[in-house]
Amino acid sequence: METDAPGSAVIARAMRDGRMVLTEPEAADLLAGYGILGPREILAPTAEGAVDAARRLGFPVVLKVCSPDILHKSDVGGVRLGLTDGRGVRAAFDELESLVGACGARWIGILVQEQLAADLELIVGARFDPTFGPVVLVGFGGIQAELLEDRVVRLAPVDGVAARRMLAELRGGRLLAGYRGRPGADVEALADLVAATSRLASALPIEELDLNPVLVRWGGPGAVPVDRRVVLRSPGADAARPESAGDARAAVRRLFSPASVAVIGASRDTSKIGSRVLRFLTRHGFPGPIFTVHPRGETILDGVPTVRSIEELPHGVEVACVAVPPEACEPVIRACGAQGIGAAIVFTSGFAEAGEAAAERRLVAAARAAGVRFCGPNSLGILNPDAGFCGSFSGALVMTPHPGGEIAYLSQSGALGGAFMSRLWERGIGVCRFVSVGNQADLDLADYVEALIDDPAVRVFALFVEGVTDGRKLLRSLRRARDHGKPVVVYKAGRSREGQVAIRSHTGALAGDDVVWTAALRQAGAIRVTDIHGLFDAAVALAWQPPPSGRRVGIISTSGGACGILADECRERGFEVPELPPSTQKRVEAEIPSFGAARNPIDVTAQMLTRPEMLRNVLRILAEEPQVDAILLMLTTLADPLAEEVTGQLAATVQGLSKPVLVSWLVARSLAAKGMARLTEAKLPLYDTPERAVHALAALAEWPRLGSGD
Amino acid sequence: METDAPGSAVIARAMRDGRMVLTEPEAADLLAGYGILGPREILAPTAEGAVDAARRLGFPVVLKVCSPDILHKSDVGGVRLGLTDGRGVRAAFDELESLVGACGARWIGILVQEQLAADLELIVGARFDPTFGPVVLVGFGGIQAELLEDRVVRLAPVDGVAARRMLAELRGGRLLAGYRGRPGADVEALADLVAATSRLASALPIEELDLNPVLVRWGGPGAVPVDRRVVLRSPGADAARPESAGDARAAVRRLFSPASVAVIGASRDTSKIGSRVLRFLTRHGFPGPIFTVHPRGETILDGVPTVRSIEELPHGVEVACVAVPPEACEPVIRACGAQGIGAAIVFTSGFAEAGEAAAERRLVAAARAAGVRFCGPNSLGILNPDAGFCGSFSGALVMTPHPGGEIAYLSQSGALGGAFMSRLWERGIGVCRFVSVGNQADLDLADYVEALIDDPAVRVFALFVEGVTDGRKLLRSLRRARDHGKPVVVYKAGRSREGQVAIRSHTGALAGDDVVWTAALRQAGAIRVTDIHGLFDAAVALAWQPPPSGRRVGIISTSGGACGILADECRERGFEVPELPPSTQKRVEAEIPSFGAARNPIDVTAQMLTRPEMLRNVLRILAEEPQVDAILLMLTTLADPLAEEVTGQLAATVQGLSKPVLVSWLVARSLAAKGMARLTEAKLPLYDTPERAVHALAALAEWPRLGSGD
Repeated sequence: METDAPGSAVIARAMRDGRMVLTEPEAADLLAGYGILGPREILAPTAEGAVDAARRLGFPVVLKVCSPDILHKSDVGGVRLGLTDGRGVRAAFDELESLVGACGARWIGILVQEQLAADLELIVGARFDPTFGPVVLVGFGGIQAELLEDRVVRLAPVDGVAARRMLAELRGGRLLAGYRGRPGADVEALADLVAATSRLASALPIEELDLNPVLVRWGGPGAVPVDRRVVLRSPGADAARPESAGDARAAVRRLFSPASVAVIGASRDTSKIGSRVLRFLTRHGFPGPIFTVHPRGETILDGVPTVRSIEELPHGVEVACVAVPPEACEPVIRACGAQGIGAAIVFTSGFAEAGEAAAERRLVAAARAAGVRFCGPNSLGILNPDAGFCGSFSGALVMTPHPGGEIAYLSQSGALGGAFMSRLWERGIGVCRFVSVGNQADLDLADYVEALIDDPAVRVFALFVEGVTDGRKLLRSLRRARDHGKPVVVYKAGRSREGQVAIRSHTGALAGDDVVWTAALRQAGAIRVTDIHGLFDAAVALAWQPPPSGRRVGIISTSGGACGILADECRERGFEVPELPPSTQKRVEAEIPSFGAARNPIDVTAQMLTRPEMLRNVLRILAEEPQVDAILLMLTTLADPLAEEVTGQLAATVQGLSKPVLVSWLVARSLAAKGMARLTEAKLPLYDTPERAVHALAALAEWPRLGSGD
Repeated sequence: METDAPGSAVIARAMRDGRMVLTEPEAADLLAGYGILGPREILAPTAEGAVDAARRLGFPVVLKVCSPDILHKSDVGGVRLGLTDGRGVRAAFDELESLVGACGARWIGILVQEQLAADLELIVGARFDPTFGPVVLVGFGGIQAELLEDRVVRLAPVDGVAARRMLAELRGGRLLAGYRGRPGADVEALADLVAATSRLASALPIEELDLNPVLVRWGGPGAVPVDRRVVLRSPGADAARPESAGDARAAVRRLFSPASVAVIGASRDTSKIGSRVLRFLTRHGFPGPIFTVHPRGETILDGVPTVRSIEELPHGVEVACVAVPPEACEPVIRACGAQGIGAAIVFTSGFAEAGEAAAERRLVAAARAAGVRFCGPNSLGILNPDAGFCGSFSGALVMTPHPGGEIAYLSQSGALGGAFMSRLWERGIGVCRFVSVGNQADLDLADYVEALIDDPAVRVFALFVEGVTDGRKLLRSLRRARDHGKPVVVYKAGRSREGQVAIRSHTGALAGDDVVWTAALRQAGAIRVTDIHGLFDAAVALAWQPPPSGRRVGIISTSGGACGILADECRERGFEVPELPPSTQKRVEAEIPSFGAARNPIDVTAQMLTRPEMLRNVLRILAEEPQVDAILLMLTTLADPLAEEVTGQLAATVQGLSKPVLVSWLVARSLAAKGMARLTEAKLPLYDTPERAVHALAALAEWPRLGSGD
């Protein structure tokens, strides 16, 4: 907050008065400082004054009660519309005066406003979002709002250009351009109003600002807010964010590739978390020295040296894997710091997610004091298969992590993290970096993204997000990733109130307002998916295939039914399925049977079973066709060994192709395991259903357009 | 069409005149016969007459050109609105008169209409749909239509009750109930108008009827169509549907359970369709006699007797599997009929789907004459694993069909049929009856549904539909299935124009207008899914679990993240996730760790790994909780052997439960194959993702409410 910003004095006065809601004249005063002008209006202390005011303003007029003690005028019947003469004004004044008396409210006077005609009513406003700070919104009000919830939200600051974009994004936005031959509304004035609202909300401690309705006329100048509601934000609401100590980036890098680790809290009981971490570390070939700490110095695992205390650890241990009971975490972290171990993974649960927020704060304070950065608590751990580091107790690690992946997977849910990786590994797909961020008490999602942006192994980020404390910090890191050419795909849980409650009791994180998250992720240039498998469907496409340069899709299938499904799905996601140029259709016709279809979608028919090269040949034709930007291939009941032959041909054909090819294949995996493996080796993304392939293509197409100026 | 229906004379006159679009006075006349009255209006031959008419009607008035040669008045500028005095009327008349002259159109006069005020504009209309016949639509027009496409469609007949339901289904429907304190519109009059439109469209040969706009006032009586457009349907457009010969039901039953079959068109070349059919028939243990027909009498497969011609086949062969070239199909079918083989599966392609509609018609005629009913042509075949009958060449038959299923799968796409079955079999799920209906030249989807309704093995129908000729026939069969307590799940391909084109070139079928299909399926009480895997996700849930008696869902998971996702998905599908009563929360708390969540969603946490009975115990509590109507369980990284133990416990707990339990499980299948098999054996539906489980639950919940009065 800038204390010398216009309106500061109004706010200071109200706050001194203990009022968090401004009176309408105060609000008008405040808004005027930002160039936001309402209708002409006069505060009248007496009935005669009101009649006089009405004559000066011109009939018809509106009368409104005005008192610091009446917060919702309409609810108490404190507004009189359409007064067309002096008698009406006097009668209305008397009624409203009695109303103020009846409410026992302080008397300031009655507000007399000119009554404006309007063709459309809009709503312009601002909110202070606990995760992202000031956000601005614009929408339709009045009868339009009865028909559809038509609001666009954007994080402040919103300038004139962004404001115009918001207006254009309204579903009813075209109404602003006029209707049945009438000229458009004053979009310029509306955009200025939105931008001014943004400036105000950014400069002052505003909890809520509502201009509702804002009246506009077709062909008329201006956009006039006739009702204004300003709720202040108490100064205490801005809790100071804890200062982070030490270099998060260096710590994260160490957490992903430690030279040496110590496991604290392992025992001979193999079901214990620490013991599992230790076993997975060794089983999956961690190349550096591993130590365990055990009070009686017992050997936990053959070949792994044990010391009795952290103090006895040799120098050079970079990461501590902490799986001790919650009450022991604080001293352990302190001892780590004293021993020069600057980074830790805290697996232990029982902190904020279990309602123990104070214990978590103490843990953070201890770490800050000791110069230790940590992942967790309540983390499932960290994986970096390229470095042979499996610092995790995930049950998925009974499988061997697949090396050489391109995806960094940052998850606020540990369980889903392990579950998804097992599915990917089963299909031969690697995840090069995985972190279960746990409660993010110290290092948060933004820190991991920041540190991995420059990691050459990472081509794509996949984030499972439940909530963060500092939304703006996360957005900065996402935008930086975008600007470095690394797409970020986000699944955000907690869209509904029920989901938000579930999340709070899970990680202690505030899930936040979903509408604001949607706007924020979009502004940051992230790709949001709304089904959980879409997270990896999109990530794999982005990691393996180039984005299409347009929206024209060529479809090839061995089944007419599949062609129909794909075409439907493409249309629903805004892709075109153009008819191929005649010369290209001729080329396709020469390859396929006469009862096939060569227009696009191309149905090569089940004859492919006897002429397996058809598919490759048609793919080649579409690859060369300049009027096709992306290719979707769909296979049905094609089984090994023929499947392997066909996919081998496809794999060879797409090498070095500059347009994306995605495959969907509806068949029992056991029938075509080898054929499917060929596709994965060739980095041809493979999807279970045509819908999933089209959704992944949509993410791929969205990516180059995201965040540019948004 | 009833030839003595009101309006028949008007139509006959127009048709004699060669006109398919009625003039506005004709339309008004026609509509009046059904009680549909427009504004007061007078046809004026002269300017003086027009002024006089305006005076009698009262100003303001509207003037419209009126000529059988001007079909789109507005497009040529033939409407003048808001004329408030005699001078204005005269000027407008003169302009419109010149306009008629300039167009070279016949002169009837100028229509003078009273100009009515309106608060809302609606659209009421009817269409003749090529698949389903007359359909009625209602929607918002005017400024509301600019905001959203708000239309409701319903097959005729639509009575007053159904019409009121249509109005209530409009997204803007609540506007009809009034706005900001103003009284509602005359919904009764609107509903009467819709019902009258339905009567008219059912009684007369109407291609298109548009009442647009229909004006209504808040608090005012009536609903007045001020513009009326009627397009007639040419008599030739009603092609006589071919009469089917013989008993379809008996034929279908024979096709699913033949006592004896003959394969016509098999050879020693094992890649040929006939040869594949023959091999699959024998490999999967067809119990009755099989014969092959081969002109030189060669033995095709050891142990299968060959005859030289159909005439030489012994008596008692019930089904012919026909896989000869297209030109040979006609004589083969004739010979079959002569030999008393009354049913056939025609695998051969190259008919309507390849543009050879005439050949297909000849085949049908031949079959009719010979008394043969057939499946196809262009069919992948028919399966009935319970009877050991695999009359198909699907590549999926390298697997053994799983017996004992509850689902009848009727597919217009053969390839997708086989592909889906292979996936189901891989998971241990059976399909008791499968038919690839091919081009439906003779037997169509409705025939198969009809015949299978009484089949005790069939509990659920799953239909993959591309298009049918006789939509009403299909709907009758679907409704009959519903009335017999057998849910029908439908995936309808060809939602988009592009998808429709793909389908036409595939089976020769008209995919039809998707909006009409949606209305039709709903009226028939079918469950429509819009993603292809949803077809079996829903069918399995319906086959194995009881429908929930309400919308309150209890969620149990081992992961807080999963709880959040499920809660979000439940809310998005209109389910509630209610907090559990305190006493029940207490019971749950006693079972789970302190850092779990007991409110609902219930997070038993990863501690389940050490206390596997937790899940069963909590499931039992929710099973007993009367405030929970359905239970969703979600597992993450739970692997065998523990997985098998846990799912075994779950399976035992749900035996005989009267509320549905659905499971989703996010893990590599290879890690938990045994545990998953346990669920399937216990008929607990298992889904890959939480979204799919919730969608399946939605279908299950939809089913008892469907079609009742709709």
